[in-house]
Amino acid sequence: MVCFRMKQQIRLLGIDDSPFEFKDESTSIVGVVMRGGEYLECVLRGEILVDGTNATNVCKNMINKTRHKDQIRVVLLDGVALGGFNVVDIQEIFEDTGIPVITITRDKPDFEKIKSALEKKFDDWKTRWNIITKGELHEIKTSHNPIYVKYVGLNDNEAKEIINISTIRGVVPEPIRIAHLIASGMSRGESYGKA
Amino acid sequence: MVCFRMKQQIRLLGIDDSPFEFKDESTSIVGVVMRGGEYLECVLRGEILVDGTNATNVCKNMINKTRHKDQIRVVLLDGVALGGFNVVDIQEIFEDTGIPVITITRDKPDFEKIKSALEKKFDDWKTRWNIITKGELHEIKTSHNPIYVKYVGLNDNEAKEIINISTIRGVVPEPIRIAHLIASGMSRGESYGKA
Repeated sequence: MVCFRMKQQIRLLGIDDSPFEFKDESTSIVGVVMRGGEYLECVLRGEILVDGTNATNVCKNMINKTRHKDQIRVVLLDGVALGGFNVVDIQEIFEDTGIPVITITRDKPDFEKIKSALEKKFDDWKTRWNIITKGELHEIKTSHNPIYVKYVGLNDNEAKEIINISTIRGVVPEPIRIAHLIASGMSRGESYGKA
Repeated sequence: MVCFRMKQQIRLLGIDDSPFEFKDESTSIVGVVMRGGEYLECVLRGEILVDGTNATNVCKNMINKTRHKDQIRVVLLDGVALGGFNVVDIQEIFEDTGIPVITITRDKPDFEKIKSALEKKFDDWKTRWNIITKGELHEIKTSHNPIYVKYVGLNDNEAKEIINISTIRGVVPEPIRIAHLIASGMSRGESYGKA
């Protein structure tokens, strides 16, 4: 149970990955530390392998090493995998850092399609599949389309409240939206698309 | 004369450069398009030569090529040079793009020191010196320390108003502060320092 004192000012870390081509060996992930959905305090960068297995560790390092760690109350992740199928174990991040994690996707994950792609591509597909399917997927209604989230270290109401506090326009919380704009703009020269 | 309708929502482009070492041939510049001082809409990246002479052109291209050009009302630049002594001709940017430009520095420029460094380093020091000293430097009082600004395409009151609208905390307008955080964080792994 997390105590959200001064909720509007709560520090959140949003993480998204940079666009990449499948010939790229690695890609950047971008972290942004914000107070609520409003004030950007810090930008972080990490490097992960495309389709690799190090995203969980790189996220843990990003969280554990930033000077803002003590202030960060929740980590928000764009989806359950970064850099292709470099899947993120949010339970492991929570246990290692002590900070609750929420993953958010705008589209309902097509698990059959994901499983079939994993089986085709990876000898270790079972490990990745187990991480992806760990925990419960929740549909959260918004005034626009619903979003799909998983969380660890929070209860349903807390997760909803964090998303609510940090979303200004549309359905994506600002820390993820801004991490996406930075990752996309730095990689392509001009940011495009939505997180 | 610029008409600032819906002032709080006015689109501003802030530009800052990435930290670099003098052995680096080039460095990134980061542009951020914001509505007023609050809502980040787009992140842009350009590449300039350290101590080169292409910063004016790269800024012009960044402005002319973004899909947000028609909405941008004012460009805010962190200082009069990017990537070392790659000086920016804000008059030329204004004439070429039609968009007013404000440069902002937190410390009063030491012109004697700048001139002496230019003379030592560059055969074309006079050209750079003429660009740097073009236009009037204004001291603007804030509730903290004063800032030092130049502007073209705006009158005194308009420049002050733009700075006022877009500054949330401290003395640096958000588009420049955020461009700085992105440029610094992407280059170093974690953003440090102030614009």
